Amino acid sequence: MKNNPKLTLVGAGPGDPDLISVKGAKALATADAVLYDALTHPDLLNYAPANAPKVFVGKRAGQHSFTQDEINKLIVEYALNYGHVVRLKGGDPFVFGRGQEEIEHVEAFDIPTEVVPGISSSIGVPGLQKIPVTSRGDSESFWVITGTTKDLALSKDLALASQSSATVIVLMGTKKLALIAETYRNSGRNDMPVAIIQNGSLENEKVVLGTVDTIEQLAVDNAIGAPAIIVLGEVVKHHPNFNHAFVEASYLKK
Amino acid sequence: MKNNPKLTLVGAGPGDPDLISVKGAKALATADAVLYDALTHPDLLNYAPANAPKVFVGKRAGQHSFTQDEINKLIVEYALNYGHVVRLKGGDPFVFGRGQEEIEHVEAFDIPTEVVPGISSSIGVPGLQKIPVTSRGDSESFWVITGTTKDLALSKDLALASQSSATVIVLMGTKKLALIAETYRNSGRNDMPVAIIQNGSLENEKVVLGTVDTIEQLAVDNAIGAPAIIVLGEVVKHHPNFNHAFVEASYLKK
Repeated sequence: MKNNPKLTLVGAGPGDPDLISVKGAKALATADAVLYDALTHPDLLNYAPANAPKVFVGKRAGQHSFTQDEINKLIVEYALNYGHVVRLKGGDPFVFGRGQEEIEHVEAFDIPTEVVPGISSSIGVPGLQKIPVTSRGDSESFWVITGTTKDLALSKDLALASQSSATVIVLMGTKKLALIAETYRNSGRNDMPVAIIQNGSLENEKVVLGTVDTIEQLAVDNAIGAPAIIVLGEVVKHHPNFNHAFVEASYLKK
Repeated sequence: MKNNPKLTLVGAGPGDPDLISVKGAKALATADAVLYDALTHPDLLNYAPANAPKVFVGKRAGQHSFTQDEINKLIVEYALNYGHVVRLKGGDPFVFGRGQEEIEHVEAFDIPTEVVPGISSSIGVPGLQKIPVTSRGDSESFWVITGTTKDLALSKDLALASQSSATVIVLMGTKKLALIAETYRNSGRNDMPVAIIQNGSLENEKVVLGTVDTIEQLAVDNAIGAPAIIVLGEVVKHHPNFNHAFVEASYLKK
């Protein structure tokens, strides 16, 4: 029997499948179809009914990847043909997840929508490493910025950020590391602590800890690549290995 | 039988008990004692064993409230006497949660610690209301600021924030609303959309939608009080009622 069409955007959290919310798992259990991204853990699909189609719509090297327009159309198509579509997205659906565009498109077809927030990697990944995004005396605010805009678009807000007392977290920014470091040097913050965390919350997690002046070389030496987040701020000093070593293996051995 | 002493900081999420992570629920299930805050939902205690002591250490009107020093000492005391202490905190433990201070204190006693991140109300509460903290064309970043520092401490970062293209989210800031609005007016942003969401994710949720120039009166007219979050940014226009009404009742009817 076909249910009423509906879209639920569900945040899957930073990677570890146990970091999904109970509400997100319950939404999956009532899904008639699941459309999921590259950064969502495959184990999460087990929450959904066995007979519900599970469609990968993310980007992976060497495979066809869907445009946002194609994803928007797929959601409507599956909602009309199957019923309740769960759109499973890495982190939180509204943190650089283009969730807003999907909601807007789907609601234009009079299909109801709901949002189940997720643990954003911007907060959760440093937290798992015991780097607090805020800490009394170090930082009373944090600023989360995407590294995937055009170079100049990034620079203006990042220049303000580098002058503030905020902890700054850059998502999808490893390719912009040189620009980020330059911006901080221009604000005289050469010694600001920096962490880069790749594959946060997963077994293959890698962490590099340094300063604005040292981080670029450390990233090269340790072959840090995407997906990774960059944390800039005094709070990075709270990492248990900050004074002892620049790289540690994953703290998660399952 | 007494287990080895251990502390797990668990983020409970913004209020709705189903917004805890699966990992957080599993941590509670292995707790020998739970110390919980005012903003964590009582239903969450049901995840913990029936015989584990559950100790309220938050602040409630008319009751004794514990200082941070007292909480730090209680955690150590319970860990040494009971074993695995779960410290259940509203939102994420590191977003203005003083989690860092608890970890530092406990580790000085050689008690191991672990962090289970939570859905921060800064992202999740606007998200549940379909206000995306980021949205292409509106905002490529978001800045989360606490309103509980001294007036002047807030002003400097907020002045930078009001000049940026970031969505700004102020937690615990309803008493600073006049100062926040003044700061945005000083940056010429009188028409910037603003939302205030009280009791986010709960049945008694209240939402006020306006602009920098109108929000103070709307908050007074609708008796908005703590706990509430303030969202400033073009993204607020995406709220389904932004053009229709300034207040809506809770979207959650259970």
